[in-house]
Amino acid sequence: MIITVTPNPALDVSYRVAHLEPGTSHRVRSVHERAGGKGLNVSRVLHDQGLRTLVTAPVGGTRGDAVRDDLAAAGIEHLLLPVPGPTRRTVAVIAEADLVGEATLFNEPGSHLTAADWQRFRDLVGTRLPEASVLVCSGSLPPGCTVDSCAELVRDAHVRSVPVIVDATGPALLAAAAAGADVVKPNAAELRETTGQEDPVAGARQLRDRGAAAVVVSLGPDGVLAFTEQGLWRAKPPYAVSGNPTGAGDAAVAALAAGISRRQPWPERLRTAVAWSAAAAAAPVAGTLDHHVLRDIADRIAVEPLAS
Amino acid sequence: MIITVTPNPALDVSYRVAHLEPGTSHRVRSVHERAGGKGLNVSRVLHDQGLRTLVTAPVGGTRGDAVRDDLAAAGIEHLLLPVPGPTRRTVAVIAEADLVGEATLFNEPGSHLTAADWQRFRDLVGTRLPEASVLVCSGSLPPGCTVDSCAELVRDAHVRSVPVIVDATGPALLAAAAAGADVVKPNAAELRETTGQEDPVAGARQLRDRGAAAVVVSLGPDGVLAFTEQGLWRAKPPYAVSGNPTGAGDAAVAALAAGISRRQPWPERLRTAVAWSAAAAAAPVAGTLDHHVLRDIADRIAVEPLAS
Repeated sequence: MIITVTPNPALDVSYRVAHLEPGTSHRVRSVHERAGGKGLNVSRVLHDQGLRTLVTAPVGGTRGDAVRDDLAAAGIEHLLLPVPGPTRRTVAVIAEADLVGEATLFNEPGSHLTAADWQRFRDLVGTRLPEASVLVCSGSLPPGCTVDSCAELVRDAHVRSVPVIVDATGPALLAAAAAGADVVKPNAAELRETTGQEDPVAGARQLRDRGAAAVVVSLGPDGVLAFTEQGLWRAKPPYAVSGNPTGAGDAAVAALAAGISRRQPWPERLRTAVAWSAAAAAAPVAGTLDHHVLRDIADRIAVEPLAS
Repeated sequence: MIITVTPNPALDVSYRVAHLEPGTSHRVRSVHERAGGKGLNVSRVLHDQGLRTLVTAPVGGTRGDAVRDDLAAAGIEHLLLPVPGPTRRTVAVIAEADLVGEATLFNEPGSHLTAADWQRFRDLVGTRLPEASVLVCSGSLPPGCTVDSCAELVRDAHVRSVPVIVDATGPALLAAAAAGADVVKPNAAELRETTGQEDPVAGARQLRDRGAAAVVVSLGPDGVLAFTEQGLWRAKPPYAVSGNPTGAGDAAVAALAAGISRRQPWPERLRTAVAWSAAAAAAPVAGTLDHHVLRDIADRIAVEPLAS
């Protein structure tokens, strides 16, 4: 089973408007709500692809209840820790006049999580680690969490010999790398901001030097770059699929988790990561894949070794 | 007592972001929630100015509970009908890099209100009409309400000889005028859209001809125009105060209600409407007045009769 951790889940609210014009008033045509957060979207993709997965997250308030209800309705296994602070919202505004463009997102920071609640959450995740083939820790940390929080989960999992994938950014990413995360997956911009390196190969090398066993850098519609213990690879789709960037990154993480769980060699994992990522970019909401794109693209991903 | 009706109240959520750029992702720096809706903001202004007021509205769900709690915390008397559909949200995004500009607003449509629930709401408002000096019906109607809903309240109030002010737009405004509303208060754009008349005097005359006893047109920072049974007036502030346009309109309605309640002559009502409106435009959130602006401007409003 692949366990995903979403330290800072959200109730994702999406609004459709005719046209978005800053400084003016907009009539919202439709309102849609669903459980969100990066780890949770990783689990959605895994569930969609028939892999067993468990969502774990701290949740609070009526929005936390809505997250729980939505996961139950989707039939996705979950283990949620009730905490006092209400679960945050994200608001995505989709302008109908501009559907080819990207959504405008507003991400609330989330409620403060105390050190005691984080410890309770770690303990709760720990109760299921004996069943895990992979642990995935994905997305932002709520206010109150130390930057070492993902790193703590890496260490907890390694005690049980469970490999860990971390999709984080900044100090939390550096700490997870130093704790020896098996895979860290920043996107190119996050890698640049975190390491200060313009060149993704140099940035990935820095994270490997810190302690990460492998670094996979998502390059948006251009595929992925992977710096692993077995070498350096570049995987590319046959054509660029742009669209939902959040969903694309989460689908890449899901594919890497599936690949580790299935003990696939690296080139095969990267092929799947690029295929799922492109299929997710083409889908309207994060956590889902466009199966038409997936079928079309799956056997046409080029994976090339690079000189490191 | 001035009773306000907010047929479609909201939980107003405001987000501060560094800078608003459509098609990108924004980290929300602060989240603030408060009970909202136009009638409710009219009551806030009246309460702030020491007048007795009662908020009435249908509310539902946990957001309805939040509306109730916020009114209680503000010490504003309220009579809320619990209904099945959850109270809507509005989201206001304020870009800190651009604080002189206006907020970007997203207004959810609201939950469907059944005819039976609307009738229960009318009955509930009716129980307090014997205490009312003025009834104010302000803002949009929720889905499911007929365009005649405000007009029904006008007739209910007139049975009790209670004068009614209606701040609405489109067919609901036309119906309220036809029902003989004592004052209707569109802004210039709403008047134009509703009547098809470019000239506000011509538009106001059309609403008078339909049956409204008086028409007050808010002209934003330029003051108001009033077409009444006693003549036509134009009231202007000594200088333009731009800012929060929603708050300004609601404050003008509050002043008109206060003026009727205190049996002030029309020029005095209009003077107060312009003063409160400018003071509300200068305040950061709807329903509050900037008392510095109010003191500075109150005795300097020019009211001139116009030839009709």
